Amino acid sequence: MEGTVNFSAGPSALPAPVVERIREDLPDWNGTGACVAELSHRGEPFMELAAGLEARLRRLMEIPETHRVLFLQGGAQMQFAAVPLNLAGEGGTASYVDTGAWSARAIAEARRFCRVQVAASSEGDGYRSIPPRGEWEVAPESAYLHYVANETIAGVEFGSVPDSGAAPLVSDMSSNLLSRPVDVGRFGVIYAGAQKNMGVSGLTVVLVREDLLDRAHPLTPTVVRYSAQAAAGSMANTPCTFAWYVASLVLEWIEGEGGLTAMAVRNERKASRLYRAIDASDFYSNRIPARCRSRMNVSFELADEALDPAFLEGAAEAGFIGLKGHRALGGMRASIYNAMPERGVERLVAFLEDFERRRG
Amino acid sequence: MEGTVNFSAGPSALPAPVVERIREDLPDWNGTGACVAELSHRGEPFMELAAGLEARLRRLMEIPETHRVLFLQGGAQMQFAAVPLNLAGEGGTASYVDTGAWSARAIAEARRFCRVQVAASSEGDGYRSIPPRGEWEVAPESAYLHYVANETIAGVEFGSVPDSGAAPLVSDMSSNLLSRPVDVGRFGVIYAGAQKNMGVSGLTVVLVREDLLDRAHPLTPTVVRYSAQAAAGSMANTPCTFAWYVASLVLEWIEGEGGLTAMAVRNERKASRLYRAIDASDFYSNRIPARCRSRMNVSFELADEALDPAFLEGAAEAGFIGLKGHRALGGMRASIYNAMPERGVERLVAFLEDFERRRG
Repeated sequence: MEGTVNFSAGPSALPAPVVERIREDLPDWNGTGACVAELSHRGEPFMELAAGLEARLRRLMEIPETHRVLFLQGGAQMQFAAVPLNLAGEGGTASYVDTGAWSARAIAEARRFCRVQVAASSEGDGYRSIPPRGEWEVAPESAYLHYVANETIAGVEFGSVPDSGAAPLVSDMSSNLLSRPVDVGRFGVIYAGAQKNMGVSGLTVVLVREDLLDRAHPLTPTVVRYSAQAAAGSMANTPCTFAWYVASLVLEWIEGEGGLTAMAVRNERKASRLYRAIDASDFYSNRIPARCRSRMNVSFELADEALDPAFLEGAAEAGFIGLKGHRALGGMRASIYNAMPERGVERLVAFLEDFERRRG
Repeated sequence: MEGTVNFSAGPSALPAPVVERIREDLPDWNGTGACVAELSHRGEPFMELAAGLEARLRRLMEIPETHRVLFLQGGAQMQFAAVPLNLAGEGGTASYVDTGAWSARAIAEARRFCRVQVAASSEGDGYRSIPPRGEWEVAPESAYLHYVANETIAGVEFGSVPDSGAAPLVSDMSSNLLSRPVDVGRFGVIYAGAQKNMGVSGLTVVLVREDLLDRAHPLTPTVVRYSAQAAAGSMANTPCTFAWYVASLVLEWIEGEGGLTAMAVRNERKASRLYRAIDASDFYSNRIPARCRSRMNVSFELADEALDPAFLEGAAEAGFIGLKGHRALGGMRASIYNAMPERGVERLVAFLEDFERRRG
């Protein structure tokens, strides 16, 4: 049998060469005589890593000088509070597009801190689509307009960056950052937990336009305040140094593979291959319209859900991890982030076909 | 030459067998076919790790049933905000003892959220002592009384748990948690970043008495709210799974070494050995009164600070990392947490004596 294929939605698979490198770097990272996680974040070796991490992310994403790069903790969930705290001030209004469970959580959290206008929602059709931009009602006084670029549970993804008018555009890109090029200059804030495409959990990347740094509500904790973290080089608190280190290895790997354009081509090919196999069969189905389908999280259902347990058992025997759908939705889900090799998708397609032949 | 000895103040050395185990577990942890950081935090293997982590911490620290155990992110610095947000409600008062730079930062942050009474301060003598309990002025209406159990910069440590009267006692134990037994039942809240005695940065342990869970200010972000994290098993946001994993290995190691009583004996012996060497010499000095000296962070100065560079150069040649004192204080500092073997202290003492012979 070939090795394991890890389809986990997040935390998720790392590129195999990154895991190998982590192993090689133990117990003596970079000639320091210690593991990277044993060293001071303010010592020269780690400060060098930190500078390299930011430089590489700026290069890969072509982040303009107008934007600061923050490396924080707490995940997207912390940013669900941090965004309104930092941008909406006291008594402000923000607009949110509601396209899935993560949007809904972001909205619920924002309501604790500001007035929220839901500009559009696809809740009515089970979060299986994205309302067309023309139908959105953005509050004119919005401190920002927020959307989740990729919803992991049903697997819906924005195909392009929506126009936000006068309001700064804010996006949770936790599950598709680094999966394709993005025009950072169009955003006020982009944030993402690292555990899908940038390494391990414990690191949250926040790209914030400089003119938005100083709008925080007075009750924003210091480590959550963008201006404080920008001033402190993201070290207002001790960073999760191991996650920074893994991120630097992942970015190095992405660069070596050809950068975000290469990632985009590969991701498109992997997702197409899988959707094609699903669409070609009456045994499997995916009900997301083509224009909203996620390239990162491919959900599908078996025509007869009584076969789900047998499917998952067979998948485990084939060496597949994490194919069970999110508990909120059921069914199956294959998360195929940057680190998923094309061979992994090929093996899944072969398994789908084989299982259908045997049980369909 | 023998290997490296890591005296970093934090992030700091891990027990050598823990580093070895991390290496062995790559790339296939526990038969899962993946690295622990690549797996879902809600999957069975990680949930088992999480349950074991809490059970082991409860056993080691003898945490009573009255207290919840939370595993969060953001470090002590995040708790500097989280404590007043969770405990002082709106318009409350809290009392703080000010015994060093970390106390001062906790106080500055708390002032953003509540009225602060500084019950006592040793700022006047450069934070080289701890004001006697009899001199503290605790505000009678205090939502809590806060102190930092060990201040890492000058190296001062409370020898025992102070009486807090009616106010719940809250302590930042980031730098001495797990270094000796502590009567958790006497505390309202104990919190600690993991990167000294419990593993790597990215994990913050919070022990909170159940009756204090529901006092949060309405503007407390969900992931910072003790009640929300308690209800969610510390998974209101995706945890830093790698840090949880390392913590579980560290706790296993502590248990194998004989638990907190054994740690206390060893830590006492290591610190005494080092302070004895410093006190025996006119070439090195430590100006902290014996009753306040830290067992974790031993600071010392050379009589002639012009020799500091030569000392640090010699220390680096001897394989020592992290002996330079904190930038706020200068001089030298040896951090000797649980993971520091007695042999490491012996080697430092031998180096101190040798350097004095050559340059004194």
